[in-house]
Amino acid sequence: MPDIEFFRGCFNSYLENKLSTKEPHNLYDPIAYIMDLGGKRLRPILTLISADVLGGKFEDALDAALAIEIFHNFSLVHDDIMDAAPLRRGEKTVHKKWDINTGILSGDVMLINSYQYLENYPADLFKSLLKVFSKTAIEVCEGQQYDMDFELSDQVTVPDYLKMITYKTAVLIAAAMKMGAIISRSSEKSQDVIYDYGINLGIAFQLQDDYLDAFGDPENFGKQVGGDIIENKKTFLYIRAMELGTVEEKNELKNLFSIKPQNPQDKIRTVKQIFTRSGAAEVTRKEIEKYTQQAFQILESLEAPENKKEVLKQFGNKLMNREV
Amino acid sequence: MPDIEFFRGCFNSYLENKLSTKEPHNLYDPIAYIMDLGGKRLRPILTLISADVLGGKFEDALDAALAIEIFHNFSLVHDDIMDAAPLRRGEKTVHKKWDINTGILSGDVMLINSYQYLENYPADLFKSLLKVFSKTAIEVCEGQQYDMDFELSDQVTVPDYLKMITYKTAVLIAAAMKMGAIISRSSEKSQDVIYDYGINLGIAFQLQDDYLDAFGDPENFGKQVGGDIIENKKTFLYIRAMELGTVEEKNELKNLFSIKPQNPQDKIRTVKQIFTRSGAAEVTRKEIEKYTQQAFQILESLEAPENKKEVLKQFGNKLMNREV
Repeated sequence: MPDIEFFRGCFNSYLENKLSTKEPHNLYDPIAYIMDLGGKRLRPILTLISADVLGGKFEDALDAALAIEIFHNFSLVHDDIMDAAPLRRGEKTVHKKWDINTGILSGDVMLINSYQYLENYPADLFKSLLKVFSKTAIEVCEGQQYDMDFELSDQVTVPDYLKMITYKTAVLIAAAMKMGAIISRSSEKSQDVIYDYGINLGIAFQLQDDYLDAFGDPENFGKQVGGDIIENKKTFLYIRAMELGTVEEKNELKNLFSIKPQNPQDKIRTVKQIFTRSGAAEVTRKEIEKYTQQAFQILESLEAPENKKEVLKQFGNKLMNREV
Repeated sequence: MPDIEFFRGCFNSYLENKLSTKEPHNLYDPIAYIMDLGGKRLRPILTLISADVLGGKFEDALDAALAIEIFHNFSLVHDDIMDAAPLRRGEKTVHKKWDINTGILSGDVMLINSYQYLENYPADLFKSLLKVFSKTAIEVCEGQQYDMDFELSDQVTVPDYLKMITYKTAVLIAAAMKMGAIISRSSEKSQDVIYDYGINLGIAFQLQDDYLDAFGDPENFGKQVGGDIIENKKTFLYIRAMELGTVEEKNELKNLFSIKPQNPQDKIRTVKQIFTRSGAAEVTRKEIEKYTQQAFQILESLEAPENKKEVLKQFGNKLMNREV
């Protein structure tokens, strides 16, 4: 039975053959660079697994997987400009290694390229795939806009926040899976079920990312623990604490989220205490659990062989344990 | 017989109904703004005329025309960031009125939107249209990259330059026409002929733009005469003068193209003299004439009713006389 590592290996090998540098080099070298930085390839793997689970050939889903991964990297290149991020996966971001113009134009080409990789599908599949793909691409952009808007707002509610992470993170995971389902020519119902699985898993994953930023094990998390607190990012923990905390806790939190001290360790410690004391940490854990369980419940209703569904469940479990 | 103004009116009325502002406003307001700034709508008009000339209903080409115009405006928004341009059609550019991040993200959404407007076509047409569209979109980006690369290079040859303007300007005009031909389900041969007409007309148009920047009538040109000279832009006139001029002329030109005097009138006058004396102006006029005549010759071979072809010829003539 093929496992997650098998699919990752196949995808990476397929990707490697597609990466070439061509002219103009100032346009294409940055694309090869960012695609070569690695990453866990979670989304394209999900495309391959979905096609396989629903009775298709996973090989047929390789181009869609490529489209998804290139789109994802396009969004990273442009988001990194907007967020003025100097590093990505421990290396310089494209606009830091080259410049902002290069980041903009290479990103544009990647977005167009992602459409082109779908041209290998027959016309009916091509159109179905593109409708999902474009709708999702728009939502990802809207999610980025909401994320930037929220940075400047004091009135972000939990539903607002959930909508933002759904758009910014969950829909692409869900679309990656739905595209695998479309390629295997499965029923609309199955396409919807697997999409819903992806949405719930994606939300659980992002909420957990918020949680682990404060309470994660530095060994396992893969990112700098406390990074969101240092950057004053209004995560789910923050929004919940601003709802649940006492007047004093809220005031302290608000003050702490308006400063960027040279040595942030005291700030991180105090913020974590407020997250815990206010009950925000516990509520967040419960919310993660809720979305994870919803995902697995949805998966049960998917009409597919049990042993194949097991791979998807495994993926969900490993993802939530940060082992994938 | 419908004329150019008829098609422009139909397109503008169709476009107006499609422009809405929705949430998040920081993302969609800039799109409504740039689309509302006007412009001559040359490309979408060509899509409608092409569909009509080749026996289709022009109404069926409205969505493709919209896709082309939105794509064109996407490229303007991103190019204006890269070129640090403060004004577009006499008004603030998107990144000046808002900021660079807004320009990047709103541009991204416009690019994706342009694909979505094609979703109304049946699957087979959809795929044919998208293949032309994506290929062209990539070429436009490559053209922009070559344009930026050339600014930093001293060794741009005439073939290099012609390739750059073909990609940056001509292919989108040609693709706009080919998409109209595809929608009218005309033969591949007709699609190719009309595409070639567009390429030659597009090159002639851009070379003339270079020429008029120096020698145009300020009343008719629509842009600031001398703007390329002020900006030290290496146009066709400059490249030709650097080939044809005497050693003294070349040195003087090179020096003049390394300065940006407060009052540029003397510089503009001297540069124009060199363009004329070296023979570059005359060579450029001949080149414009060559591509224009090539376009009309290609048009003759198009299998379509003569009275319909007349509209396309009229368009070409009016375009070259800057009356459209």
